[in-house]
Amino acid sequence: MAKIAVNGVGTIGKRLAEAVIKQDDMELAGVADAASTPDLKVFMQKNPEVPLYACGEEAEEEIGREVFSPEGQVEELVEEADLVFDATPSGIDKKNKEELYRPMDTKAIFQGGADGDIAPVKFNASANFEEALGEDFVKVVSCNTTSLCRTLKVVDDELGIDSVTASLVRRGGDPKQDSRGPINSIIPVTEVPSHHGPDVQEVMPEIDVQTLAVKAPTTLSHVHMVEARLDKGAEREEIRRLFKRAPRIRLEKAGHGFDSTAKVMEKMRDLNRPRSDMPEATVWEETITAEGKKLYWIHMVHQESIVVPDNIDAVRSMLEMADKEESIRKTDRNLGLK
Amino acid sequence: MAKIAVNGVGTIGKRLAEAVIKQDDMELAGVADAASTPDLKVFMQKNPEVPLYACGEEAEEEIGREVFSPEGQVEELVEEADLVFDATPSGIDKKNKEELYRPMDTKAIFQGGADGDIAPVKFNASANFEEALGEDFVKVVSCNTTSLCRTLKVVDDELGIDSVTASLVRRGGDPKQDSRGPINSIIPVTEVPSHHGPDVQEVMPEIDVQTLAVKAPTTLSHVHMVEARLDKGAEREEIRRLFKRAPRIRLEKAGHGFDSTAKVMEKMRDLNRPRSDMPEATVWEETITAEGKKLYWIHMVHQESIVVPDNIDAVRSMLEMADKEESIRKTDRNLGLK
Amino acid sequence: MAKIAVNGVGTIGKRLAEAVIKQDDMELAGVADAASTPDLKVFMQKNPEVPLYACGEEAEEEIGREVFSPEGQVEELVEEADLVFDATPSGIDKKNKEELYRPMDTKAIFQGGADGDIAPVKFNASANFEEALGEDFVKVVSCNTTSLCRTLKVVDDELGIDSVTASLVRRGGDPKQDSRGPINSIIPVTEVPSHHGPDVQEVMPEIDVQTLAVKAPTTLSHVHMVEARLDKGAEREEIRRLFKRAPRIRLEKAGHGFDSTAKVMEKMRDLNRPRSDMPEATVWEETITAEGKKLYWIHMVHQESIVVPDNIDAVRSMLEMADKEESIRKTDRNLGLK
Amino acid sequence: MAKIAVNGVGTIGKRLAEAVIKQDDMELAGVADAASTPDLKVFMQKNPEVPLYACGEEAEEEIGREVFSPEGQVEELVEEADLVFDATPSGIDKKNKEELYRPMDTKAIFQGGADGDIAPVKFNASANFEEALGEDFVKVVSCNTTSLCRTLKVVDDELGIDSVTASLVRRGGDPKQDSRGPINSIIPVTEVPSHHGPDVQEVMPEIDVQTLAVKAPTTLSHVHMVEARLDKGAEREEIRRLFKRAPRIRLEKAGHGFDSTAKVMEKMRDLNRPRSDMPEATVWEETITAEGKKLYWIHMVHQESIVVPDNIDAVRSMLEMADKEESIRKTDRNLGLK
Repeated sequence: MAKIAVNGVGTIGKRLAEAVIKQDDMELAGVADAASTPDLKVFMQKNPEVPLYACGEEAEEEIGREVFSPEGQVEELVEEADLVFDATPSGIDKKNKEELYRPMDTKAIFQGGADGDIAPVKFNASANFEEALGEDFVKVVSCNTTSLCRTLKVVDDELGIDSVTASLVRRGGDPKQDSRGPINSIIPVTEVPSHHGPDVQEVMPEIDVQTLAVKAPTTLSHVHMVEARLDKGAEREEIRRLFKRAPRIRLEKAGHGFDSTAKVMEKMRDLNRPRSDMPEATVWEETITAEGKKLYWIHMVHQESIVVPDNIDAVRSMLEMADKEESIRKTDRNLGLK
Repeated sequence: MAKIAVNGVGTIGKRLAEAVIKQDDMELAGVADAASTPDLKVFMQKNPEVPLYACGEEAEEEIGREVFSPEGQVEELVEEADLVFDATPSGIDKKNKEELYRPMDTKAIFQGGADGDIAPVKFNASANFEEALGEDFVKVVSCNTTSLCRTLKVVDDELGIDSVTASLVRRGGDPKQDSRGPINSIIPVTEVPSHHGPDVQEVMPEIDVQTLAVKAPTTLSHVHMVEARLDKGAEREEIRRLFKRAPRIRLEKAGHGFDSTAKVMEKMRDLNRPRSDMPEATVWEETITAEGKKLYWIHMVHQESIVVPDNIDAVRSMLEMADKEESIRKTDRNLGLK
Repeated sequence: MAKIAVNGVGTIGKRLAEAVIKQDDMELAGVADAASTPDLKVFMQKNPEVPLYACGEEAEEEIGREVFSPEGQVEELVEEADLVFDATPSGIDKKNKEELYRPMDTKAIFQGGADGDIAPVKFNASANFEEALGEDFVKVVSCNTTSLCRTLKVVDDELGIDSVTASLVRRGGDPKQDSRGPINSIIPVTEVPSHHGPDVQEVMPEIDVQTLAVKAPTTLSHVHMVEARLDKGAEREEIRRLFKRAPRIRLEKAGHGFDSTAKVMEKMRDLNRPRSDMPEATVWEETITAEGKKLYWIHMVHQESIVVPDNIDAVRSMLEMADKEESIRKTDRNLGLK
Repeated sequence: MAKIAVNGVGTIGKRLAEAVIKQDDMELAGVADAASTPDLKVFMQKNPEVPLYACGEEAEEEIGREVFSPEGQVEELVEEADLVFDATPSGIDKKNKEELYRPMDTKAIFQGGADGDIAPVKFNASANFEEALGEDFVKVVSCNTTSLCRTLKVVDDELGIDSVTASLVRRGGDPKQDSRGPINSIIPVTEVPSHHGPDVQEVMPEIDVQTLAVKAPTTLSHVHMVEARLDKGAEREEIRRLFKRAPRIRLEKAGHGFDSTAKVMEKMRDLNRPRSDMPEATVWEETITAEGKKLYWIHMVHQESIVVPDNIDAVRSMLEMADKEESIRKTDRNLGLK
């Protein structure tokens, strides 16, 4: 059993910790945090058996007072663990790498918000599982990038993609981030093409990907409008089947009433998915359109959970516990995905 | 085991059906619907063992095509059941009462949207459980009214309430109702006092309750700002303890980071509550303020689920299966409430 | 002086009526409406000298009671006018054409919501002014289409456009339409490519335009993310200058603080533009990006007012009152545009 | 002519400067700012003749580069002026008072966000005009407080108010403040009663005012639900007439289609109010309800502009230029209010 630690119990960290608990070849060595946040409080209320560590003396005191006494400092946890998920804020992650993980010789996985140079390998399970094999430091790409890698990989493998233009409508903040706006405004990302294209290319350098982005007043998910130019003509039905077969891609029929991000998320609630999460990229079936060598679709990206399965796979690749197919199968079965 | 049917598998109906399944003294005889809605599709995907009936020939054909073949028509279900939850749209409920439930001599519970004269008893488990004893037709009051009844009852029993003014900030629509607005507007309910005050008084005629209301661009919950004038002076701490002990009232500390409707709902997600629901009225602890004989607080109302436990209790009262304390205890234990 | 009538004093009609008043070669013969709406009430409060007509007996009675007595029925107005702006709801416009304008031999201009077959010419002043010369019936294209025509025309004339992919983020409703949602959801237009591409091609058949669209919870404006593939390579600065020189296109620097739709609209408020309107397409300067033969930009579209100047120009074309350059110059000067 | 300066050209400052320009007994000596903000840029683009000053060397350089060269430093402006409107951020205002206005013996008016102890007099023109007579430092109360003072004063003068409970639904941010949330959440003000009640009592100490407040996802206005307990019974019609006659209070009929904050603001747009502002408190007529000695109503508060007329009146009181009636009449006529 691989011993896994989670440093930073926020939006991503709390999900990674519970995903680790559900795996049959990993155990959660513990979690650490630097403050007594609502996320940490509720996580420990729900998972009181998980060993809890503090990042610093001050945190130990505060967490001890408001949650319950930590077992010790994060150093002990990192020492004991085979691998750490670092889900701390950008900037802290780098310091952790240099002062904690590297000195203690513990492997670490960083998240999409981390600087690009924090790890040599940018990872997406569907696209480049093998590149993380045996690596010490890996960065799992961001939510937007993850969804593009998953969908583009499937099409590229089968039909060959020449170039892609994707227009991203990003959510203003997560549901709990209610000090973030906008309330009634659309905010363009003025850097065009936006960073998301190059991010995809770090994982899939063979595809020319350009992205434009705006931010909108919604909390539920990002939405991408994608145009892919293929090496050869394709049929709509062929693409539909590719997406249907692929892991971590869901199809949803707008015509069956699932015609918006809110209605798809309602389905996740109805299905009792944990936290009403949706770790799959979800493509609206009717939007898949092929016109000669041009292919279009619109998909949604649940920003809070989509990277969770890829993080779990990164562990297996880095610790050489399974090959790609086996890892994805295991992760998805354990997380209750299709 | 009481045989319970659910007619109308929408926002309330799907929750009632699953709540019945969780009770140890009830069984779900089946559900019926008039159309193949997303709610019905997902409900049956998740609960394929539940007997499914159609309301009319057309519905039977449509549901048979898009979901799976109904066992028959709603009449058969009503015939078989001891009691029906009617969660159909306002107007249909009345027709159902006269053409289905009354002729077949089956008891029925109606929801907050139904006309006031649909049933002689307006019901809230905390406030007037006994009034539904043995009744044939009962209306469980609306979400806003339910939260007011629960909180006011506790205070009135202990301290005596002279009068109440509550100002309601209503959500514009449920999360899935995304054709409803407003996007960026506040809409006053121009009828002042609004109907919510009289609605409370149908359950608790002894209290003078006045309400004002506006509609706001949010989907997560209603929020009430309450002023109660007591018969005698009270201490803040006393009220806090009353709320803490009472069933179906939760206290939440804004100072611990749960300082908005979104952050409280995030806790429900984290706790893996089904559908991230919160059937309790949640009072922000810091807002409880006593000034002489005046008492203030602010609470939130999860409009989709708050009436579920009261509906279950109404069954036990109407079928004389348990007294108030026993019913509330059973319901809450089976639903996983505190 | 051309005698112009406005039939339907709603979001578009009230703006057209006031735009006509401001022209030095047109006079407003009157306005007509079928109901006593808030738009009509405020318009007449502000412009009490404008002759007011009713569409039908019932309307005459209602408007007479709530606003003030109409001078007569819409037929008289149409009779007297050289040209009518029809800004009535879709469906009514067609009836008006057949039963009013054609029998009375009065020219008419229809709006973007009208059926495509209502008029042989689809009009955008920048792109095809001459096509409406002397015509009896013309449809001015919708707000989204207008902004695409304006910007694409400029680039196509100078550099030649091969193909365009535009991704549209549409506003959920206008500010006053507060029964429209979504509150917190993104709704994909499942028809891909969306109708906007073909709409542009009705005006500019020489360009291959594909569009995808979603609806977002905002009221202020639409936003377009555009990729154009050119016949030859271009420089960013060249495009910037093209847009800067073109009529009815504004450039805005995000880096100067105008970095969102809300902040650009605040500028319109500060400048005391009537109704805080912005009839120009506004391109964020920093987003103009040229990569070889590919060109990108992001622009915003004030849905309530962008078509106003094109409507005024359509009058001059249909009544052969001026050529394209003169008409655009006149309109813009009279409306106070750059 | 009183020489008036404006220090801080933001949301309030830009409005005050233009309001001064419109008065016939005041002249705008100049404006000063500490940075080259969008507000300042657009203000100077529109009002290039207004003398512009910088707050500090750095600001002089930045403003000189991005707007145009300031005439000098703020000290010169303060020196020359009879009175300064300080509309700088909270904290800066206090420093300005001690280091600029007091040493230079220039009177100053501070805004609602300033600390309570910044000035001995808290001012609302309707309620306590005389208290500022000849004063050196005055604070005009906040937007929420201003609307409560105006409406309560009218009722109290005529009928006597015993006590008031007002529930405030505050806007999340102004239209241009699009980094502010919430997007989809209601945030209670946990301090109960909120500070607004005591703020009113600083102006009108004779009334017992209690307030509760929440923050909602809207930008257009605040909305207040008010319950006043009167010394004697009142008739609805009497109150309606009181409000109708009072300066700076508007009545709006929801039944005529002005049934939300968005629809009332649309009217301001239609009327070509500068910036589509509404400096009056607007009461929905239908919500005025009298039940014995209890009086209810709902009003809206345009947070960006409601304090503007009171600021202008404060000048006349402090400089002893006119009595209350004359000042209010002058201000309102010059600003185009009823």
